[in-house]
Amino acid sequence: MHCQNYGQRVQHSVFECVVDATQYTTLKIELTGLVDEKKIVRFYQLGNNYKTKEEHIGVKGSLDLEDPLIF
Amino acid sequence: MHCQNYGQRVQHSVFECVVDATQYTTLKIELTGLVDEKKIVRFYQLGNNYKTKEEHIGVKGSLDLEDPLIF
Repeated sequence: MHCQNYGQRVQHSVFECVVDATQYTTLKIELTGLVDEKKIVRFYQLGNNYKTKEEHIGVKGSLDLEDPLIF
Repeated sequence: MHCQNYGQRVQHSVFECVVDATQYTTLKIELTGLVDEKKIVRFYQLGNNYKTKEEHIGVKGSLDLEDPLIF
């Protein structure tokens, strides 16, 4: 739920989020409060040119991270 | 199995692989042959400085992508 506030779910456990530095920090703090010892969350920063760093195999649904996000 | 030939599984459906351009192309070709219409695979290229672009919450097991990989 928290990740979906910041971006879009692209697979069951994978979210792509377009965030600024403040939002990124806030998201990490929120998730840190939720993650128990048995769970892990990994973050990968793609930078501003993220569109050039993504590729895809298989059916791609409607996924445009430039769509408006509701906070 | 194919992804594990190139790197390490860090979550159930997430693999981190250190590959050169040729290996990356080969991996994509292999996976394209495996993915049916109901599955998707997404690739994110972190570049050479990938260590600075990863962060982690929760228990982190032994994960060092510089460990030797068996091909």
